[in-house]
Amino acid sequence: MDPKPPPKRRNAAQTRSRILAAAQEEFARKGYAQAGIRDIAKKADVAPSLLLRYFGTKANLFEEALRSAMLSPGLFEHEKTKFGEHMAQLLLEEGDTNLTAMVVRSSGDDEAKEILSRLNKTHALEGLAHWLGPPNARARALNILILFTGFVVHCHQIPMEPVRRESLKWLARTLQAIVDEGTPGAA
Amino acid sequence: MDPKPPPKRRNAAQTRSRILAAAQEEFARKGYAQAGIRDIAKKADVAPSLLLRYFGTKANLFEEALRSAMLSPGLFEHEKTKFGEHMAQLLLEEGDTNLTAMVVRSSGDDEAKEILSRLNKTHALEGLAHWLGPPNARARALNILILFTGFVVHCHQIPMEPVRRESLKWLARTLQAIVDEGTPGAA
Repeated sequence: MDPKPPPKRRNAAQTRSRILAAAQEEFARKGYAQAGIRDIAKKADVAPSLLLRYFGTKANLFEEALRSAMLSPGLFEHEKTKFGEHMAQLLLEEGDTNLTAMVVRSSGDDEAKEILSRLNKTHALEGLAHWLGPPNARARALNILILFTGFVVHCHQIPMEPVRRESLKWLARTLQAIVDEGTPGAA
Repeated sequence: MDPKPPPKRRNAAQTRSRILAAAQEEFARKGYAQAGIRDIAKKADVAPSLLLRYFGTKANLFEEALRSAMLSPGLFEHEKTKFGEHMAQLLLEEGDTNLTAMVVRSSGDDEAKEILSRLNKTHALEGLAHWLGPPNARARALNILILFTGFVVHCHQIPMEPVRRESLKWLARTLQAIVDEGTPGAA
């Protein structure tokens, strides 16, 4: 008989990603300060002690959850010529993404802010800047982050349909213009 | 002899505005959840009981502090042709305004969010839309708020000088383009 594949390693990876998904949802919904290890563990269907064995502290769990949301596919998989349109569509459909909600809802907390700042520099900004290419790649990446974050903050607060839709059109144009600066002839 | 002017009414107005200024600073620095009545009272040099006699609750104080920050001069006093440049300059000099910091740091709290949402609709958005004029005044006002908020969130997190300065130039251009849509011939 063939031996069964060793279950431990696969289960560990699955448990880890289940915890990260639960953490992303909770941090997005409640922000860093108000999200609790106990609720995250319950949502991931693991014991709080197991969660802490995997991630050590709430700060570390937040950092890992942010990092994995930043690296998730979807953001950079589209053609450059359709970037603005696709991003506006994404924001229209989802209304919000866990990543942006985590950033916005947690930016009032000093501990979370330090983590956000570090990851923004090393991951979000650098990744986006690399994808954009010259000129001024980092400044243009920053402008894209500014537009995303601002939109998410205000569209929670101003859910008026015709206004939101008009604003999304502007967002799509403005995002695309940022990308096109790096593509001679596209602008 | 001339009688002294009655001091009471004038002092009440002064005390009120001193409390509001202290509240704006504290809410901007700590966010709604973490700012305390006691600290605000101390900063305004009044007893906490007096503060509560003036404003009733922390929620109400937050609302009044926000409202007065939204109505403060500076935002709409400039010529329309220089709006983008002036706003970028303001953000460069102050790095931050109490208003935007209050909005950003408090947006994770449910009670504060409800107040923010209500005031944004009745004050910030409508005031700005009125100043901008047609077409699509509210959507363009929303776009301006998006740019401000996004910039404030990220510039706290990414204080890299050349990048920030390049991004501010883009912000000035983009703000001005929004204003110019309402001025035939300016764009």
